Amino acid sequence: MNQIDVVGMGPGSREQMTQQAWKALEESEVIVGYTVYTELIKELLPDKEYRTTPMRREVERCRIAFEEAKKGRRVAMVCSGDAGVYGMAGLMLELGEAYPEVSVKVVPGVTAALAGGALLGAPLVHDFAVISLSDLLTPWEKIEKRLRYGALADLALCIYNPSSKKRADYLKRACKILLEVMETERVCGLAYQIGREGEGWEILTLGELKERQVDMFTTVFVGNSQTRKLHGQMVTPRGYSVEK
Amino acid sequence: MNQIDVVGMGPGSREQMTQQAWKALEESEVIVGYTVYTELIKELLPDKEYRTTPMRREVERCRIAFEEAKKGRRVAMVCSGDAGVYGMAGLMLELGEAYPEVSVKVVPGVTAALAGGALLGAPLVHDFAVISLSDLLTPWEKIEKRLRYGALADLALCIYNPSSKKRADYLKRACKILLEVMETERVCGLAYQIGREGEGWEILTLGELKERQVDMFTTVFVGNSQTRKLHGQMVTPRGYSVEK
Repeated sequence: MNQIDVVGMGPGSREQMTQQAWKALEESEVIVGYTVYTELIKELLPDKEYRTTPMRREVERCRIAFEEAKKGRRVAMVCSGDAGVYGMAGLMLELGEAYPEVSVKVVPGVTAALAGGALLGAPLVHDFAVISLSDLLTPWEKIEKRLRYGALADLALCIYNPSSKKRADYLKRACKILLEVMETERVCGLAYQIGREGEGWEILTLGELKERQVDMFTTVFVGNSQTRKLHGQMVTPRGYSVEK
Repeated sequence: MNQIDVVGMGPGSREQMTQQAWKALEESEVIVGYTVYTELIKELLPDKEYRTTPMRREVERCRIAFEEAKKGRRVAMVCSGDAGVYGMAGLMLELGEAYPEVSVKVVPGVTAALAGGALLGAPLVHDFAVISLSDLLTPWEKIEKRLRYGALADLALCIYNPSSKKRADYLKRACKILLEVMETERVCGLAYQIGREGEGWEILTLGELKERQVDMFTTVFVGNSQTRKLHGQMVTPRGYSVEK
């Protein structure tokens, strides 16, 4: 049976890929993906055939993958981070119903919540929620509701897609909602360009975060009520009794 | 400066480790961890020195790591899944305040939410929450609150530590809370022994899940209101317009 691997490549560098992900890319003949991500892989595997579509052309991108697989070619569809967290795994499985002769295998990877969390320290070491601020496919009212309930539940939050050109004020709007429940001094963190050139991170308060302009390559972390800044890192205690 | 790598080794197999995690283990002299996880690594790297402590001896385990690092030895502390999701990264950073001569680096890995999600299909492809049912360190009332708000927020849920010998009915109690908000037919999934011998998964309804006894090697997935069973897999649509 023809197979497509939907591969989570992690933050971007080879060393943050799993061995399974790397193998799937190496064994493929055609690598399909969003242009920004295929460029990262092209440097590592220049001899593959690459098929790309720009953002918002995801359905077309999937169909290209299925059409190539139908021809009997081994296909890898690449996603940044994890294939199953705002990645292409879902859409591929939805569209796959029309291609019964192709089997779709999901290969997991390190998503930005984990890679960014590791840079900052341990912000998500207890219960947490992952919420995207992109309202391209989700009504803003639903996003607001999720932020509000996440705050009421005292979950640490990891916020994906905090900004874009058309949504410059979304992070500010999100912070205002969180501040209905959380205190201004709540420990927050930013991780940007994770695993790529220019990688960095910063710890700040929720009040400061509200006034901050971030770009689309930034992942935002909001601590729970117990999260602390501990020698320069963001740490959410799990509740172990620690005698210092 | 002496360094400890806190390494997320993924679900268990070598091929699901990142290259960075594998390198950290290979370069270490001493590998510290919970016995079950160090056994998995010992098969791959038999020539290291291993130091283990059983469950609930986490503080002691961390102190062993710091004492070895203080002697100038290269130490890796291993965690299953991701080091920062119910892993040792938090406690290591908390205790690290007493060891200013040792730097702690967190190496992320594929946590069960991602690896189990990949087996099931794409249950967490949109906003989701990760909640542990273990009340060893968290009051049960807080866990209940998080489940309830997660359900009200229409987040997909990934439930860690759904059961143990002493907590045989916790998953049932959790399902009862979810059923206050969700319908009996809500699509749910189980992934067990992820990345290890006996690996498997199953899709069932929330009503069925309530009556199911699972073990501590199982991760539970509860879909959001849009999650569907699509040719045998669990898929949460992101909302793309798909013409079939």
